[in-house]
Amino acid sequence: MRIAVAGTFDIIHPGHIYLLKEASKYGELHVIIARDKNVKKTKGKKPIFNENERKLIIENMKFVKKAYLGDLNDFFKVIKFIDPDIIFLGPDQDKEWAETEIRKRDLNAKIIQLNLRENYSSSGTLEILRRLYKKIDKEGKGGDRNPSSK
Amino acid sequence: MRIAVAGTFDIIHPGHIYLLKEASKYGELHVIIARDKNVKKTKGKKPIFNENERKLIIENMKFVKKAYLGDLNDFFKVIKFIDPDIIFLGPDQDKEWAETEIRKRDLNAKIIQLNLRENYSSSGTLEILRRLYKKIDKEGKGGDRNPSSK
Repeated sequence: MRIAVAGTFDIIHPGHIYLLKEASKYGELHVIIARDKNVKKTKGKKPIFNENERKLIIENMKFVKKAYLGDLNDFFKVIKFIDPDIIFLGPDQDKEWAETEIRKRDLNAKIIQLNLRENYSSSGTLEILRRLYKKIDKEGKGGDRNPSSK
Repeated sequence: MRIAVAGTFDIIHPGHIYLLKEASKYGELHVIIARDKNVKKTKGKKPIFNENERKLIIENMKFVKKAYLGDLNDFFKVIKFIDPDIIFLGPDQDKEWAETEIRKRDLNAKIIQLNLRENYSSSGTLEILRRLYKKIDKEGKGGDRNPSSK
């Protein structure tokens, strides 16, 4: 069984680990990394790590068989290439959209979505951004900056 | 051969991947994660991810055999438990200190340090913090914030 997962995977957090682990239970895990240009378009801002860095980090995660950069124009181009049995979605990804698109494209992949209730988001990107803002806010005020810090 | 590496490993970046990969070339890689309290003490600020999150992420990296939380008081307690053949240091870790300490403690570990010239630091923590600051500075000014961003 080949499983496909797609995402930005900018700053690796426990929610990512959980997603990759659950997806990989179904078979060989192939991960598509969103391109910098598309992240900028979709989220309105560039990721912290560029696409090659994000790919390098993901392909060095235990549950991952292979990582790919997405296509700049057609999200389904790399999906077609992988030809997965399952497209595994994160809890915040659009299942309805994915189902409509695979029906349009002669793809036989089944869609499985990680359950929202399984505590994915609590350690997710929003939580990390909250911590980063808090940290930088503190440091901006010189709160706990330490000159000896490496 | 058992190899020990120790560090904070807060936000995984390509420099970490490189360090883990190089260390794991010598044998089975055991990673010691710095405790939150000690990071706060040494660097003057808490890490973004807590010690259990950092351990979870590291133990799910491909080159890692096992991850451990460090001891709160004695850095060498877990080293003694692992009983490594090699202690592998990052380019910014203190080789002289490590050598003095292992001599004091009946440890036979050899110390190998990742070469500074091998481009570790260019994608390291300082570079990431630079990017985060830049990002948050921009967003603070409302520069590229997008209400549709997830």
